[in-house]
Amino acid sequence: MAQNIYDNADFFNGYSQLPRQVKGLDGAPEWPAIRAMLPTVKNKNVADLGCGFGWAARWLREQGAAEVHGYDLSENMIERARADTADPAIDYHIADLDTLALPKACFDLVYSALAFHYVENFPRLVTTIGQALVDGGDLVFSIEHPIFMAARHPHWIADEDGRKTWPVNGYAMEGERRTDWFAKGVLKYHRTLATTLNTLTEAGFALRHIAEFAPTQDQIAATPDLAEELERPMMLIISACKTGS
Amino acid sequence: MAQNIYDNADFFNGYSQLPRQVKGLDGAPEWPAIRAMLPTVKNKNVADLGCGFGWAARWLREQGAAEVHGYDLSENMIERARADTADPAIDYHIADLDTLALPKACFDLVYSALAFHYVENFPRLVTTIGQALVDGGDLVFSIEHPIFMAARHPHWIADEDGRKTWPVNGYAMEGERRTDWFAKGVLKYHRTLATTLNTLTEAGFALRHIAEFAPTQDQIAATPDLAEELERPMMLIISACKTGS
Repeated sequence: MAQNIYDNADFFNGYSQLPRQVKGLDGAPEWPAIRAMLPTVKNKNVADLGCGFGWAARWLREQGAAEVHGYDLSENMIERARADTADPAIDYHIADLDTLALPKACFDLVYSALAFHYVENFPRLVTTIGQALVDGGDLVFSIEHPIFMAARHPHWIADEDGRKTWPVNGYAMEGERRTDWFAKGVLKYHRTLATTLNTLTEAGFALRHIAEFAPTQDQIAATPDLAEELERPMMLIISACKTGS
Repeated sequence: MAQNIYDNADFFNGYSQLPRQVKGLDGAPEWPAIRAMLPTVKNKNVADLGCGFGWAARWLREQGAAEVHGYDLSENMIERARADTADPAIDYHIADLDTLALPKACFDLVYSALAFHYVENFPRLVTTIGQALVDGGDLVFSIEHPIFMAARHPHWIADEDGRKTWPVNGYAMEGERRTDWFAKGVLKYHRTLATTLNTLTEAGFALRHIAEFAPTQDQIAATPDLAEELERPMMLIISACKTGS
């Protein structure tokens, strides 16, 4: 079962102040990369796993999605999502992605942003998603990059030239990672990149496109702190297609 | 054009003493992982790109391959491969993978070990391989992992606990990387993992399986120094299938 850190008051208060929570999708520098990997959603049924405040759910409806179902573990998040949404074609559900049940062959797109690294049983989730998608349906999701998550002490260090450098250790040792982020001991699950990709192909997904978010020169000009994201891969974005087999 | 470091005398002398060159395939700890990703080759035509001394070419023939064609930039390597091979179904060719020409729709399997990171123009090579494979043919190759290659100073450091830690910087900055390995300024080309995988899918390959080599407990018991390869991903192994589209 995933840790419900989002209903920890300290975490929730800090998290709610992140640019991506205040400004929505445009507050997330990786959003243009994700958006470019999304299929057209007009008249399609979409599930958003880890929907948070519902920013993506509302955007998907603006793009013409028929129905959007958002799922999140956090009662705080779902409560705020419901309060911010006035659209009968968007439904929000409280659900743990580690025990999630979805209707079968019902969705054309499953979308998820920065949620799957909180899931302990990724193969179960991928099987559930595969069954919930129609044949030819799409799965597009972002996670923290395994290189970003692997180390025992995941923080910037300097190399001998003083250059920002990201430390990697324990990469092949999958499992729990605890970090302090707005609260002590936020629990995530490290999986290698190979494990993530192979779990998808073994469940009958064809890999379409991979992105490792890196800021553009325009983004760096607007937000100079983003330049450090050229040094390390922080986020992994994957689009995959459910094959009919 | 790829740098021909293998015909530098210092490099060649050092390189020739590596366990994987003295003992052949069984001297490479990642070989069991690669072997598990190879299709059956009985009666198949195989190309080995960067064939070196011909260890894999001879092994592929022992597995029943009909013909094996080995390609390598290095005259030293090809000369030694020819001297070590007495098999009319194995042909060796001197060829730069950056300008390689292959016969069309001729091979069932293209194999390559630790050669493609010396190639500057990877999309060209992948297109060439795609055209050389029959529909449904396989490409199985290993490269140095982009996480291993990215940093300006790619050597072990210690974290605050004294744990072996691998430094990453410049990950999103693709292109030349020069390192000293048996000779000064060995030239390799860094590409992100996303670029490598997307180049394959864009050329009509379906990704089958990815491995990031990590030693088994048995391997670590036999060769304790291998334990450090649990800390970082050093090698990336990819199997892909040419689709008929």
